[in-house]
Formats: sequence, structure tokens, C-alpha cells
Amino acid sequence: MDFFFYPKSVAIFGSFKEGAIAYEILRNIVEGGFDGRIVPVNPKGGTVEIAGKAFEIRPKLEEPVDAAIIAIPAKFVPSLIDEIGELIKGAVVISAGFSEVGNVELERELVEKARKHGIRIIGPNCAGIFGVHGKFFGSFEVRVKPGGLALISQSGAFGGAALAMGNDERIGFSAFVSYGNAADLNESDFLRYFADDKNTKAIALYIEGVRDGRRFMEALRYAAGKKPVIILKAGKSKSGARAAASHTGSLAGSYEIYRAAFKQAGAIEVEEMEGLFDAAKAFEMYEKAGRRVAVITNSGGPGVLATDKLESLGLEIAQLSDETVEELRSFLPPQCSVKNPIDLIADADYERYKKTIEIVCRDGNVDALLVICVPPIFVPSEEIAKAVIDAECDKPVIVNFMAGELVRDGVKLLEEGGIKNFPTPERAAKALAWLSRR
Amino acid sequence: MDFFFYPKSVAIFGSFKEGAIAYEILRNIVEGGFDGRIVPVNPKGGTVEIAGKAFEIRPKLEEPVDAAIIAIPAKFVPSLIDEIGELIKGAVVISAGFSEVGNVELERELVEKARKHGIRIIGPNCAGIFGVHGKFFGSFEVRVKPGGLALISQSGAFGGAALAMGNDERIGFSAFVSYGNAADLNESDFLRYFADDKNTKAIALYIEGVRDGRRFMEALRYAAGKKPVIILKAGKSKSGARAAASHTGSLAGSYEIYRAAFKQAGAIEVEEMEGLFDAAKAFEMYEKAGRRVAVITNSGGPGVLATDKLESLGLEIAQLSDETVEELRSFLPPQCSVKNPIDLIADADYERYKKTIEIVCRDGNVDALLVICVPPIFVPSEEIAKAVIDAECDKPVIVNFMAGELVRDGVKLLEEGGIKNFPTPERAAKALAWLSRR
Repeated sequence: MDFFFYPKSVAIFGSFKEGAIAYEILRNIVEGGFDGRIVPVNPKGGTVEIAGKAFEIRPKLEEPVDAAIIAIPAKFVPSLIDEIGELIKGAVVISAGFSEVGNVELERELVEKARKHGIRIIGPNCAGIFGVHGKFFGSFEVRVKPGGLALISQSGAFGGAALAMGNDERIGFSAFVSYGNAADLNESDFLRYFADDKNTKAIALYIEGVRDGRRFMEALRYAAGKKPVIILKAGKSKSGARAAASHTGSLAGSYEIYRAAFKQAGAIEVEEMEGLFDAAKAFEMYEKAGRRVAVITNSGGPGVLATDKLESLGLEIAQLSDETVEELRSFLPPQCSVKNPIDLIADADYERYKKTIEIVCRDGNVDALLVICVPPIFVPSEEIAKAVIDAECDKPVIVNFMAGELVRDGVKLLEEGGIKNFPTPERAAKALAWLSRR
Repeated sequence: MDFFFYPKSVAIFGSFKEGAIAYEILRNIVEGGFDGRIVPVNPKGGTVEIAGKAFEIRPKLEEPVDAAIIAIPAKFVPSLIDEIGELIKGAVVISAGFSEVGNVELERELVEKARKHGIRIIGPNCAGIFGVHGKFFGSFEVRVKPGGLALISQSGAFGGAALAMGNDERIGFSAFVSYGNAADLNESDFLRYFADDKNTKAIALYIEGVRDGRRFMEALRYAAGKKPVIILKAGKSKSGARAAASHTGSLAGSYEIYRAAFKQAGAIEVEEMEGLFDAAKAFEMYEKAGRRVAVITNSGGPGVLATDKLESLGLEIAQLSDETVEELRSFLPPQCSVKNPIDLIADADYERYKKTIEIVCRDGNVDALLVICVPPIFVPSEEIAKAVIDAECDKPVIVNFMAGELVRDGVKLLEEGGIKNFPTPERAAKALAWLSRR
């Protein structure tokens, strides 16, 4: 499927009036810096200007391209596929008006034409695709920065919202695919593809239901064996499943069966949309983590909240070794607690954090660290951020700097250092729980 | 306790060097716009300048004031209380170094002196208090905007972080109190006070443990009978309870007993820190909500996620009346789903949202609405925000505009219209669940 996610050339079919879908996709591709060949196609011809660059609109496609993106009225799509079938390797059909509104026959015809020419289809009724490392933004959705997360979304609108929220969370993406009606390619194909894609470090999957349970399980097992697969399943409740059926026409099936299947395949299921991003952030930093966690904090309360959450998620509050306790006791002020959670108290500074992280990290009883910082007194939060960045530690360190504006500079510094921040102690604890499930 | 939260005059004891605790509190009081009398006191005398205003530092307090804020070394506090006891009504003791570090006798002495003079004590070892509507910011924590939430926090640092996060969530506060060791006044006293405070619409309480279970239950029942009381209990797990014991010295006790007690008293318990803010936002808008919810969305996926969460929290997906369905069918495009969740699809505009909200709101089977908006195509998100604001509806409407930057303008408009936004469908669903528990 490289011709979809790393195309060398692309044709776009539709209206190139400003605001039209094809125009918006062309704009995204051009502004995204795609350096392959771009061929806009519309029977009316003419030109279209994007970012000061004029493109000639061809009345028809006459040269071979890797992929076609199609946003013309549904009823014309099958004949277009038949017409250009020998010139393309695959088509992304944005157009709606197929099986999702009852036009099952039209969708069957679309697939038949594709099969006839041996090409693959994404969609129809989808929001398009991104191949971020190939700078190919073949969708009208908001562009994202390059990174390791491939987002596979059955729902186009969910996918679009997730990309924008991912930008807010500063998540880097390798790819995005919204596959709509899944007339040809579906979640199982994309799972396998991204499992082998070298730029993808983790896969996030939003599904309401799947087409072929057995095929899905095989693909999921394959993908989860190679990298973390994070799943958000919608349609878990009775009413939710009913709504999903009317939304994507897919049978949501019994949630209990899905749940067991995800677990058996080694995938990470998250409960809520927020979890999708938090898990993605965790796996962007670490492949996995052990279950024995040390909590380091400069405020008792948040340390207790983290501890509660860790324990309720089945993780262990690590029992620090006697050497660790002694080493900590040797330089920490007497008011500090050297039992896990370790409380460095409010006036903790760079040295106190850095030394503590390093000592605790060397403890054989500790698999992972959860470092909390409420606005420190006497020093700016950047100092503590620097301590976390500078501390030598070869184990996963999950960070919760909290209090919005008061730690903004510290969080910014962390992120520049490649460390993602989790905004509450509980969300940091959940991140460690997901890491421990790999 | 009005002399604490609406004082007419205040004395501050401590060092007024820049960066010192007493200086920071004085600065907060002055910059916060307190228009009562302010008396800085330090044996060395001198002057201190804040925001271009010079204050004479008195060597000792010689005039009566409502409240004293004390940030001098612990060992001098009891004798100071004895000295000024007849001039003040209450004292907030910021100073640390009492029972929390084993100096039980010093704390006993402090209370004894206070009793002798018939005055009340907040603290010691606390972060201070805010009476926001009296523009009295008697703490070094970040100032907040006026509103209806009173925050009572056993942990000072948690309280400070919560205020800053509240600012981020644009929550308005009536008051804040961090009560530290609770040598005299404790959570039960504050619950009763804020239950009767006219500026407080809801109370948020962070506790690790309580002093006197019976007294607490009475106070909680009293307060929850008057307004929503949101509780975040830390020390729920075995390790968490142990950590809490070493942090505030309070016995966390069996969580199951707390949990049952909260429920019995009619308080709203939240699981995580995030829930504290979300619940506060919900109760800032509405007193309560019924259990039958209608979901209105412009994207199927998020509608399904909301439905899942509502049902898992024990709420009902309202069965729309035949009239409602007919009315919706009469003007909505055929692709829209008029079953709950109601899907207005991606091109939904102002009219479609406004009319749908109004029609659904009139349905006798519907108690509350959950309105979702992913970035609309063709219109800016402000249009949908305006529809939500303009729609005539006398039932609770909880809103989830999602996708960060793409709906930022819409969310801003909502907030100017007094409508808080919840960033994910699940968090919006939880808000309705909390409202339904009143």
C-alpha cells in the first residue's frame, strides 16, 4: 500500500472551486509540501491557484499516477474507476452516497470495477488519508506534525477531531486513514500495513465494529506482536451498539467478545477518547514498562492520588531497597518522606529532583518512575523540568507537572526535551498502566 | 467566620523581604484589590512597597483587626497569639513546624492560647485562605476569578494546583481554604460555613481523612442538603492510605466506609482530580439534571462514545416521542438520524442545531441534552456555538465541542455566553451523571 501512503504522484478528481472538497484536499497536499507530481482533473479544465502556484486542471487523466483521490458525485465513481483503472494503483473515494444511504448496488459496482483493473480502494464515504513522512496530506482534515503514530479511524469525523486534538497534545503522526464504508480495504489491511511500516511506532485504532472477526483477530495479533496497538472501541453499551449500527452500518457485536479478543491479541484497549491520546503519548516515549512504580513528588496530596490510581489499576507501589532509602536519607531534608511515594516537599529544587530520580532509578525493585511537580516555591518550574531531562535513568519516567499556567514554561521545556507531560496524577498513572500491558 | 472570608481589616505577620511568604501574601492581598485596612507587622519596622504603594510596617499590632495572617517561625506563634488575642477575631497560621513534624505540644499550646482569647485558628501548616467576593486573597497561591465554587483542601499544595487548574478551566471561585493540620477549625466547620455562604453555589472538598467522623457526616449532610458538595477523596488504596497517613497524619480509614457515607449524605464523589473541575463546571451551570438524556451531534462516532458512557454511568438514552421524531424528520435532511443519538451530519449549520435543540428540549421524555460538535464543514464553529446559546431550552444542556484549535473560537463564544465546554464526549457524559446524582 506504499502507493497510498508514500505516493510519487497523485490525481485529484472533483471541483476546484474554493471551499469544494477536491480544492481543500489539493490545498492540503500543496501546502503540506508534497514534492511528487499532482494532477487535478475536472472535465471543465481551467486552472486553480494554491499558495501562489497555478495548476492546470486536466479534462481527463491521461498519465499513470500512484493514487487517485476522488470527490465527484457517487453515481459517476464506478465508471471513472473503469476509465482510469489502468493508470492508477489505488483510489481513495471521498464521495458519499453509497451503502451508507442504501446504495448497496452502486458500492458493489465500484468494487467490481476496481477488481477488474486490479486496483485497491479506500472508502467510499471517507475523509481520506495522510502519509505524513511522505508529506502527503490527502484529506481535508487538519495537517499534523510527523511522528510515530498511525491513526486508523472508521469514523471520518472522529478521525479529524482526533488529529486536531493530537496537535493540541503535540502528538506526532506517521499516517492517518479514514476508511469509511470499507468496501475494499478495511481495518485488518491497515493494521497489517502499519505493523510493517518503518515510520510507525504505534497504531491507534478507532472502531465501531469489524467486517470479518477472524481476519481482524489475525491482523491484530500480527500488528500487536510488532508494535503497540491502542484501541478505542465505540458501541460498547446496548444503545451505543444500536447507534453504531445506524452510523456505520456495522454490527457492533457483543462488547465482551471484543474485549476478550483485544486482550488475547495483546492490544491495549482504552476506555475513553482521552485515553487514546494519553496512551499514544506514553508509547511515543517508551515501548513498555514493568509494574513496580516509584512515585516522586513535591506535594503529598498528588502523590497520594497517583498511588491510589496506580494500585487500582493493578500496578505495584515499589518497595524501595534499604540502600535506596539510606542514600535518599543521606541528602534529603528530614521533613522529606523517603518511603514510596517519595515526598521531596515544596521547596524541592533541581538537585533534589535530579539526585532522587537517579538514585531511585538504580533500585532493582523499581521498574518505572512517576514524577510529579506542583508549582515549586523559590525556583521556576523550568528548573525541575531540567532536572527530569538531565537525570540519568534508563527506565520509563512518566511526568505530571500540574497547575496550568504556573508550570507552562516547565512543560514546554520538557516537551522540547522529548518528554510528554500528563496533566493530572491519575492520567500519568494510567499511562504507566498501559505501558505495563505490553 | 465572615471575619476570615470577608474581613474588613487584616494584619500580616512575617518577613516583608521580596520573596518571603508574608511579602507574597501582602502582595496578593494588595494586587487583588482588597479595600479594607492592611497592617503589616514585623518587630524590625520599616516600610514595604507593593505596586507603587508604600506600607508602613508596624513593630507590633496595636489596633483591632478582623483577622491575622501569621507566617513567623513556629515556636513564636503561641506567644504571638497570646499577645494579640484580644485584638483579633481569628488567625490563619501559615507557619509550618507543628504536629506535622512531631511538635504536638507546640500545636496544643497554640490552640490553648486561642481558646483563652476566644478566637479561631485556621492551620497551622496551611497555604492560607481566599474570600474572593471580598477581594481578599490571604494566601500566596495564584489569584482566581470570582464565581460560585468554594474549594476546601486539606492539602495546601493540592489546593494551589487546583486553583491554577481552575483558572485554566475558567472556573469562578467564591473562596479557598487550605486548613493544614486543622488544629482548631476543620473540614466540618468549613462545610457548614460555605453551606450558608450566599456567594457559594457549590463546594469542592479534597480530603485524605477526617478528624471526627460523626461531626463530619452531620456537616456533610447539612451542606449537601443546601448545595452540591463535590468530594475528591485521596488515600483510597492500601498504599495510598499509608501515604496519606504519613502526609497529613490523618487516618484515611476504610475507603468503603467513606464511600457509603458520601453517598448517604448526598455528596457527589469524583474519582479523579479531573472530575473535580468537570463536576464544578457542571454545577456552576446547573443545580441538577434528570436521567433521560438526548444526544445531538454532527458526527456519528462521538455520538456513540457519549452514548456508551452515559449508559455505563446508569443514565438513560431518552426514547424520543413520536411527535419529536416527526418534527425532526420534517426539516432535517434524509441522511440525518432522528433516533437518539440524533445525528445532524457534517454539514449541520446554525438553523439545524438551534431547531433540533429546541424541538428535543420540548420533549417530555427528555430531561437533559448533550450537544456534540466536531469542526463543522462550510460554517465556522462560532455559528454552532451561537445556535447553542440562542436555542430556547429550559433543561440542562451539556456541551462537547471538540478538536482543540479547530473549535477554539466556538468554545470562546460559548464561554462568553456562560456555557462551559467539556473537551471529550465522555467527560460531557460524566458531567450529566454528576448532575443526575443531586
